[in-house]
Amino acid sequence: MSGEDAPAQQQNAEEQKQQQQQQESKTPAESPKTESKPDPPPSSASTEAAAADTPAPAAEKAPEEDTFSYRALVLTGYGGYDKVKLQVKKGKPALKSGEVMVRVKMCGLNFADLMARQGLYDRLPSPPVTPGMECSGIIEAVGEDVTDRKVGDKVLVLNRSGMWQEVVVVATTHTFLMPEGMSFEEAAALPVNYITAYLMLFDFGHLRPNQSVLIHMAAGGVGIAATQLCKTVNDVTVFGTASASKHEVISQGGVTHTIDYRTRDYVEEIRKISPKGEHSHRLDIVLDPLGGSDTHKGYNLLKPMGKLVSYGAANMLAGQKKNLFVVAKTWYQQFSVHTLSLIQGNRSVCGFHLGYLDSETELIAQAMAAVMDLYRQGKIKPRIDSTYHLEQVGDAMRRMQERNNIGKIILTTEPMKEEEKKEEAKKDEEKKKDDKKKDDKKKEDKKKDDAKKEEKKEEKEEAKKDDKKAEEKEEAKKEEN
Amino acid sequence: MSGEDAPAQQQNAEEQKQQQQQQESKTPAESPKTESKPDPPPSSASTEAAAADTPAPAAEKAPEEDTFSYRALVLTGYGGYDKVKLQVKKGKPALKSGEVMVRVKMCGLNFADLMARQGLYDRLPSPPVTPGMECSGIIEAVGEDVTDRKVGDKVLVLNRSGMWQEVVVVATTHTFLMPEGMSFEEAAALPVNYITAYLMLFDFGHLRPNQSVLIHMAAGGVGIAATQLCKTVNDVTVFGTASASKHEVISQGGVTHTIDYRTRDYVEEIRKISPKGEHSHRLDIVLDPLGGSDTHKGYNLLKPMGKLVSYGAANMLAGQKKNLFVVAKTWYQQFSVHTLSLIQGNRSVCGFHLGYLDSETELIAQAMAAVMDLYRQGKIKPRIDSTYHLEQVGDAMRRMQERNNIGKIILTTEPMKEEEKKEEAKKDEEKKKDDKKKDDKKKEDKKKDDAKKEEKKEEKEEAKKDDKKAEEKEEAKKEEN
Repeated sequence: MSGEDAPAQQQNAEEQKQQQQQQESKTPAESPKTESKPDPPPSSASTEAAAADTPAPAAEKAPEEDTFSYRALVLTGYGGYDKVKLQVKKGKPALKSGEVMVRVKMCGLNFADLMARQGLYDRLPSPPVTPGMECSGIIEAVGEDVTDRKVGDKVLVLNRSGMWQEVVVVATTHTFLMPEGMSFEEAAALPVNYITAYLMLFDFGHLRPNQSVLIHMAAGGVGIAATQLCKTVNDVTVFGTASASKHEVISQGGVTHTIDYRTRDYVEEIRKISPKGEHSHRLDIVLDPLGGSDTHKGYNLLKPMGKLVSYGAANMLAGQKKNLFVVAKTWYQQFSVHTLSLIQGNRSVCGFHLGYLDSETELIAQAMAAVMDLYRQGKIKPRIDSTYHLEQVGDAMRRMQERNNIGKIILTTEPMKEEEKKEEAKKDEEKKKDDKKKDDKKKEDKKKDDAKKEEKKEEKEEAKKDDKKAEEKEEAKKEEN
Repeated sequence: MSGEDAPAQQQNAEEQKQQQQQQESKTPAESPKTESKPDPPPSSASTEAAAADTPAPAAEKAPEEDTFSYRALVLTGYGGYDKVKLQVKKGKPALKSGEVMVRVKMCGLNFADLMARQGLYDRLPSPPVTPGMECSGIIEAVGEDVTDRKVGDKVLVLNRSGMWQEVVVVATTHTFLMPEGMSFEEAAALPVNYITAYLMLFDFGHLRPNQSVLIHMAAGGVGIAATQLCKTVNDVTVFGTASASKHEVISQGGVTHTIDYRTRDYVEEIRKISPKGEHSHRLDIVLDPLGGSDTHKGYNLLKPMGKLVSYGAANMLAGQKKNLFVVAKTWYQQFSVHTLSLIQGNRSVCGFHLGYLDSETELIAQAMAAVMDLYRQGKIKPRIDSTYHLEQVGDAMRRMQERNNIGKIILTTEPMKEEEKKEEAKKDEEKKKDDKKKDDKKKEDKKKDDAKKEEKKEEKEEAKKDDKKAEEKEEAKKEEN
């Protein structure tokens, strides 16, 4: 789908030029182009090529088939942020019947991409592979039998993988026309988060007026999408967890009760806040991206006819690299439920992951149509947290993993300027040092922890001994009496 | 709620007379009555009293407080059909604020009542207790602060228990006005089956056009209700299991594909029939009243975004009395699911039982309003299988347990005529003999089974020995070479 192994065919420099013009002016290019028109590569294209870490295509006139190349992020193996590398792919991808080629503008970053990098997401093919489930861009070529898309159409794309590159080839059913007035950033931010939130709330959740919803990670991409979708229904109470610094933003976004999960027990907070004081069950819907013990907590907060939707195991992500202990613990604590318990509670437990729905084109198309409608009505609007160049994908992933974002993190295919790159290189050095420090601190903390545990153990044993002594004394007394 | 322990106050014979008139003419009595008007008991009431196995109230004029009595079915202990006995309760139940007294016409029989009799349903208080979750009748008295009901209103009643008697006292929120044109039989048949089917299909199931639904026991009360509700949505495909003799009726009722679960493997049948030939997952919704291994089968038939609603464990009911082995086996095989499996399948598993929703008055009221609306539009209509007198409750339960019904089994409070009773007594003798024969046959079958198993075991051992001999020969050959 992503055309990694496609043979070189031709280069369409005119499209590249058009793309750059758009990046500058942000105005849509309505005039349709044909992809078969050969044209020498203009000098402006060389900046893009130079941005990659492989030689630039010859500035002299050359056969297009040999010179078509594009930058792509490639996961080279499972591990830390540095495992995703920027490479140049050569050769124009072949178009099969029903497929289109899209010149990518922006890509969306998702939690599944972080899981995938650690080898925890089985929907990504084995490395080397280009990650990424969503992007926005302009159609550059259409395959045979494609009647519903034409060259020049602005589209957003949702796909199993392979979206983090400048050129993608996908089935036309995986592309959706961008509504008037939508930016490429918004278009890249929308598919995964809004389709996920939409299907969870309205298909599994059957959200209705006057209901109450718990949204974990309410400042994340799905969190903000879910909050906005809740607000399209009358009088829905949204409980949203996020660290305190994000509360103002998510409150403005529609969260009724913000809860700082770092300093408060959210279960207690919900019980305290909830209007049904006599009940221990407060929620109609719980959206749970965390997994592990949090799923149990959410389940126990459900009202009769309540629905818990589990859609991830973010608790498994404890650091830059896979932490087997944390993965095992999260897996072990993962929620398992017996139908007789569900019957007695009148509850529903659902599992959702868009990555496993990639063949359900009709379902996705329906949900997308509904979401687009809400966008056109101004009822939803993706919130962009930040935009990174492809070169900065490590920083982008770090920001997400450390939960510093409020809204969507975007990657742009726009090339980085030379001066930016130099600054970037400096920062990189600092970050590496910083990471080392963090690692050292972790080790230090672990040592301290171990020492503390040892102390406690000793204390306990001491206490046990005391207890035993007291018991013995008691016994002795009894015997005396 | 059911007024078992209420003190004697007064008897309202006029209401009884009115009730009998209605049973004869089937026309609604619109003129409101007051329950405080004293009146001597008419002679027609004596037949009713005589029907019970306790002395009839005195035919002479007596103070009402002492003479108010009514017949009630009482579960006297857990066990077979004979554990439900017809008794006479004395004393007029007291009315609290917000309560109404209903003179019962018809009662509905449900699977939960069968479970309850065997001690397998924890929502029924301990015996002695009057079972029954639904009835229809006429309001005979209203308590303080009741403004939405008046004496003479025809209502259907949904309650945790206590509905199988001539007089019930319930909170007004548990009563619902009968729509114009609805018979008392229909009104008693509607609450449990239709609210159950409605909430399962539309709240948990989120049923939409073009979807497919599997309905087990499609000729049962919930099965017929669910089929009718499916037909209110465009182009829903209904797979319905029932024994072959019921297929014609359920086909006419709306089942698209009838499956005889006794002679066919329904999983194979669904896979064969289903239009999506390339998929092994065929269903959007599975309604599962069976439990045990059938829940696993249903789960594996679900499409992505599919919902399984487990609403019982009918597989636990293997005979007239509790069969601990079957209960344990069903429990052991009962479905348990891990959220990570749900996530990968994009599936939902729900549990439903109306008996645990009795405090959710708002939820029930909304569902009931929707169901009544569909009734008024002629889109649903309870199908009555048969109507039994209170004296015949054992036969009624047997018919349900042996799955001989197509539609709802109803109990009427109308007294049985003398000649009917004599016939009944004869039949009873025959039935007892029949039950004994069945029990003997079971024992015989078990013996035969055991004998067969023993034979098979021997055959297997023989086969093993043969295998061993063959192996030995092989070994010997090898050594020779």
